[in-house]
Amino acid sequence: MSHSYDYDLFVIGGGSGGVRAARRAAMLGKRVAIAEEYRYGGTCVIRGCVPKKLLVYASQFSEAFEDAPSFGWTVGETSFDWPTLIANKDKEIARLEGIYRANLDKAGVETLRCRAVLDGPHELRLSDGDRRVTADTILVATGGRPARHPHLPGAEHCITSDEAFHLEALPRSIVILGGGYIAVEFANIFHGLGSEVTLVYRGKEILNGFDDELRAELHRAMAEKGIRILCHEMLESVEQRENGRLCAQLSGGEAITADQVMLAIGRQANTENLGCEKAGIELDERGGVKVDGYSRTNVPHIFAVGDVTHRVQLTPVAIHEAMCFVETRFRDNPTEPDFEAIATAVFSQPEIGSVGMTEEKAARDIRDVDVYRAKFRPMRQVLTARVEPTIMKLVVNASTRRVVGAHVLGPDAGEMGQLLGVAVKARLTKEDFDRTMAVHPTAAEELVTMYEPSWRIRNGERLEG
Amino acid sequence: MSHSYDYDLFVIGGGSGGVRAARRAAMLGKRVAIAEEYRYGGTCVIRGCVPKKLLVYASQFSEAFEDAPSFGWTVGETSFDWPTLIANKDKEIARLEGIYRANLDKAGVETLRCRAVLDGPHELRLSDGDRRVTADTILVATGGRPARHPHLPGAEHCITSDEAFHLEALPRSIVILGGGYIAVEFANIFHGLGSEVTLVYRGKEILNGFDDELRAELHRAMAEKGIRILCHEMLESVEQRENGRLCAQLSGGEAITADQVMLAIGRQANTENLGCEKAGIELDERGGVKVDGYSRTNVPHIFAVGDVTHRVQLTPVAIHEAMCFVETRFRDNPTEPDFEAIATAVFSQPEIGSVGMTEEKAARDIRDVDVYRAKFRPMRQVLTARVEPTIMKLVVNASTRRVVGAHVLGPDAGEMGQLLGVAVKARLTKEDFDRTMAVHPTAAEELVTMYEPSWRIRNGERLEG
Repeated sequence: MSHSYDYDLFVIGGGSGGVRAARRAAMLGKRVAIAEEYRYGGTCVIRGCVPKKLLVYASQFSEAFEDAPSFGWTVGETSFDWPTLIANKDKEIARLEGIYRANLDKAGVETLRCRAVLDGPHELRLSDGDRRVTADTILVATGGRPARHPHLPGAEHCITSDEAFHLEALPRSIVILGGGYIAVEFANIFHGLGSEVTLVYRGKEILNGFDDELRAELHRAMAEKGIRILCHEMLESVEQRENGRLCAQLSGGEAITADQVMLAIGRQANTENLGCEKAGIELDERGGVKVDGYSRTNVPHIFAVGDVTHRVQLTPVAIHEAMCFVETRFRDNPTEPDFEAIATAVFSQPEIGSVGMTEEKAARDIRDVDVYRAKFRPMRQVLTARVEPTIMKLVVNASTRRVVGAHVLGPDAGEMGQLLGVAVKARLTKEDFDRTMAVHPTAAEELVTMYEPSWRIRNGERLEG
Repeated sequence: MSHSYDYDLFVIGGGSGGVRAARRAAMLGKRVAIAEEYRYGGTCVIRGCVPKKLLVYASQFSEAFEDAPSFGWTVGETSFDWPTLIANKDKEIARLEGIYRANLDKAGVETLRCRAVLDGPHELRLSDGDRRVTADTILVATGGRPARHPHLPGAEHCITSDEAFHLEALPRSIVILGGGYIAVEFANIFHGLGSEVTLVYRGKEILNGFDDELRAELHRAMAEKGIRILCHEMLESVEQRENGRLCAQLSGGEAITADQVMLAIGRQANTENLGCEKAGIELDERGGVKVDGYSRTNVPHIFAVGDVTHRVQLTPVAIHEAMCFVETRFRDNPTEPDFEAIATAVFSQPEIGSVGMTEEKAARDIRDVDVYRAKFRPMRQVLTARVEPTIMKLVVNASTRRVVGAHVLGPDAGEMGQLLGVAVKARLTKEDFDRTMAVHPTAAEELVTMYEPSWRIRNGERLEG
């Protein structure tokens, strides 16, 4: 590697992917710098997964208070203070950010708190003192941000998830636009904390891409709690009233007055004003960095990982891409990231944990499928008034018997999804599940005690009876 | 099968094993009767797993109330009413018992509410009208009950788990004798509901047989909550005071005054006065029914399943044995129950989920072992004052790379243990875990992101560094 450059590797962006790549490369003895203009930790730590999950935990207490009397508890009056939660959350985020920084330092990475933009194929311009540095290899890991819906009249009055983490007060009422996991998770968070929530989604059902039965059942459970969900609806405009409140005009004619309107309509890559054209990097039509199977851009010594590449926008995927990039570029071990059977969770209430093919996709692609499905009331709810059925489903290739998909809706589904991910990734068969002894009483035991198919799909069609 | 007998199969005992065997055999067209002298459902449903777990849920609310302020909640005064919990629990148990009965009826099993005792190799005497019936095959599934410690002076003042489910009042203070999972679970239950709890155990650490590190950490967490745990101690006597309270004299000299003393010192098979000698059935030295690999007693047409056989005393194992018995006896398909890699959970607080070899056993048996271990604060506690580290451990055969054991201490460990059971039973390797994408943020993701061994064991000895 040539020492005519200032660095062996320059990483733009201090999120999950960039930080992992920088640390790994530095630990191999490379001269590495990383530039982050905002805060180390990126979307995941600063304004994504981590603060989101803390808010989810906070929002679950209201149901605990509701359920407690069935177990013999009397609970005095409860109230919720948003600024306390946000302050405690911010303290934790600051702590995590410190750990990210410290780990970079420990690995010998030069951490820069400034914006870095490309200024040529090997050149970068840094905003701290307007310096120019050079690097043999460059990694673009600038991530993404919530899309802002510029064509919506009144979009400037709306928040996104970025701002949701820092509102001054809990909105008494909020309209959330979108039907993806971010919209759904925030709908549950705000509802649990006491807001009146309306979810507006143009599609036919929330959580497109997940198992249809789980989507419908989650919709029902959320509606039962009191979250209003309007599908087949668009937001036409948002107006601010004199009292500061917002009026959201829906395509169907209804107008909803709310304290906040949140847009959760997708995310876009952070590539504006990054100098991609100066480095000669090609972008896709939506502004993401185009990469090959090894995360390499069209410029051979420039790579990109994470959300900026518009592949799978998940923290662990960015980290995996980063580790593959280091193997490929610095250890002479070309390694393609593996995107097969990625388990995911939706931290809705109830949760979803899911990996592999949905029943619908398996019917289309595999044609002959056996579906094993249990639907039951989780034991922690049997004494309560709560009726939120848990659903567990194994989608099995009828000829190979391989479990090609596993889907759970219910408490702890995220944890289960992770370990179902191990099983599906390892191509286990339904018989491997059957051979496993149940652990009683758990919810997950249903996954190993479904002896007969609940229904069969042959030639893509569900058989009756 | 001869029709000179009244029944093709007579099952003694309406617990998990007996009910499953009766239903399965009846569904094959056999003439089946089942006798239960108390309540259908057995230990699991009536005075074991199910009511225990409901009490666990109830006891967890106090920690939710404690943690809520860190998330911005103010909770008014809380109080707990034991009779409400017990009444609600009993209603649920009655409902479940009804389901067990209905399923037996639906399958065509004749259900008897009486005691049945053996009166010869094919003969049974029934307590309803003192009838005598005959059966071609007999299944002994009479289960077990808590051991009573007859040599303890004052044992008659003590309760066992059987009575714990029906106490008239929550004890203000309780001494629990034992160190197994029942003792540990009830210690946490009573503590969470507000009792002052002392756990007295003669061994050196609670939960013998589980991973040593998890045992020590759970001990620490329970002590931190305020549960007093005294190991290397015996109970020498229990005296009742005039005010009704009990005085427990310990071997170390201390005397503890408490409302209740609970014995959780093991369980014994229900074989007394069962007529085993009339049928010619051999018992083991502790009174359990001796069976071969197919659950067959020394009398070829008499079988036994479940706790009465002193094998693995778990509900799912009894059910599995019952299903193997039906295959063996009625479907001409000799099937041995499979006891390898049985996952189990301890519903302590925090929970344990565990499958396969502990590190200690693997060191002894496999000699060369790599241990992957994560210890961390679960995210749901980071905002709180609670410090209960989660531990996750994979025990890996260093030469084959097979994951031979998996052990989790922390929230939802029972659910994780079930699915780790699938992986360990299917003989997956550490590389199968490594290949799996993390689900973020979950606790279980630590199980797929432990890239380097935390320590190595070679020739049975842990290597330093």
